[in-house]
Amino acid sequence: MVLFEEGDFVGEDRVRLQNRRLDHVRKVHRVSVGDELRVGVLGGRVGRGSVVQIDEKILEMTIRLEADPPAPIPVRLILALPRPKVLNRVIAAASSMGVREIDLINSWRVEKSYWRSPRLSDENLRHQSILGLELAGDTVLPAIKLHRLFTSFVREMSPQMIRRQLALLADPGGQREVPRSVTQPVVLAIGPEGGFIQREIDTLCEIGFAAVSLGPRILRVETAIAYLLGRLF
Amino acid sequence: MVLFEEGDFVGEDRVRLQNRRLDHVRKVHRVSVGDELRVGVLGGRVGRGSVVQIDEKILEMTIRLEADPPAPIPVRLILALPRPKVLNRVIAAASSMGVREIDLINSWRVEKSYWRSPRLSDENLRHQSILGLELAGDTVLPAIKLHRLFTSFVREMSPQMIRRQLALLADPGGQREVPRSVTQPVVLAIGPEGGFIQREIDTLCEIGFAAVSLGPRILRVETAIAYLLGRLF
Repeated sequence: MVLFEEGDFVGEDRVRLQNRRLDHVRKVHRVSVGDELRVGVLGGRVGRGSVVQIDEKILEMTIRLEADPPAPIPVRLILALPRPKVLNRVIAAASSMGVREIDLINSWRVEKSYWRSPRLSDENLRHQSILGLELAGDTVLPAIKLHRLFTSFVREMSPQMIRRQLALLADPGGQREVPRSVTQPVVLAIGPEGGFIQREIDTLCEIGFAAVSLGPRILRVETAIAYLLGRLF
Repeated sequence: MVLFEEGDFVGEDRVRLQNRRLDHVRKVHRVSVGDELRVGVLGGRVGRGSVVQIDEKILEMTIRLEADPPAPIPVRLILALPRPKVLNRVIAAASSMGVREIDLINSWRVEKSYWRSPRLSDENLRHQSILGLELAGDTVLPAIKLHRLFTSFVREMSPQMIRRQLALLADPGGQREVPRSVTQPVVLAIGPEGGFIQREIDTLCEIGFAAVSLGPRILRVETAIAYLLGRLF
């Protein structure tokens, strides 16, 4: 799917792409005049578009928006900041699965250098989210927040919010199994490579999280997120 | 976890690593004499090892094997050959989740050049599998087979085997939902980027596969595998 923004409209049902975003669409879709593509408007509806002009400098389409984007999954994902190398994939994958809230938090085992990665720029996080949305046919960007201090993040978590939801902490030492096919909203916390340390686990459990385990296997964070979401919803 | 092979044993409970595999362990684990590590023997049991010597050329450990590796998940994964860029991640992730049988098959939308990738070498597939096993604390390599012709692969699939198992084909157009928490063994087929073509879907359904859908969202193959396995088991 090609995702347009409000600023791309040059008429009521006509959109125009230029520059970097045009290059992306040209490379990914290899379109010609007359081609039909799935399209969506960022934060809005989805439908079909027909290419009316394409060259080195410009792409114009007429579009018909006919449907709402797919429903989100009711999860707020709290992730110990992953290595920069995997961050992009994690954001795109979470966004493709319909996650609408992502908190990237610090943890004892997160290397300090990760917080200096240029991949944490708003622009990159937005770009990776859009790649996930375009793949999935969705239009709604996740809200991604950075929390460089574990303790102040925990302090800011509202106890009411946690009580109303199912707050789960994925930890190999968790005593309970990960629940299946839940119907209520979930807050899901996933630790760094090597896991949260015991003190962090205790802190999260004190404010209402339940430690749950996927069994004895350790998975990479991108695998664990998809596995957990598949199981939960 | 560090995975040893039969040939690494230099005594009943003593193992030695050299060369390329030593470099890998040194880089990943940064061990010193006296350190305890989780260890396993390829195809065998798991336990703890204690480093008795480490230098540029050699690592020696005494090991105690105390437990069986984690149970596999009862799934045979049939994957349209992914892009070389994602193949490594897919193999390591499947292996970390406990998949023991992987068939990489051709499909109309698999680019022919993918079959010439050096990543399809036995050595690379084995290496990626081992990375997944070491992460998960498992010791049993998946059997990975390459099938360069879709039709002969389908012809060789035994109808008895399919009837005894739950044969599922993940397809966005599938009429049924993906079942949850199944107890019987599953054969799970996942198409290429862009999906299987209708003729391939028909062929698989004729021999007993049921087309199932994850909903309207399209996911990357590595995300889809973990999501499906989390939901199925």
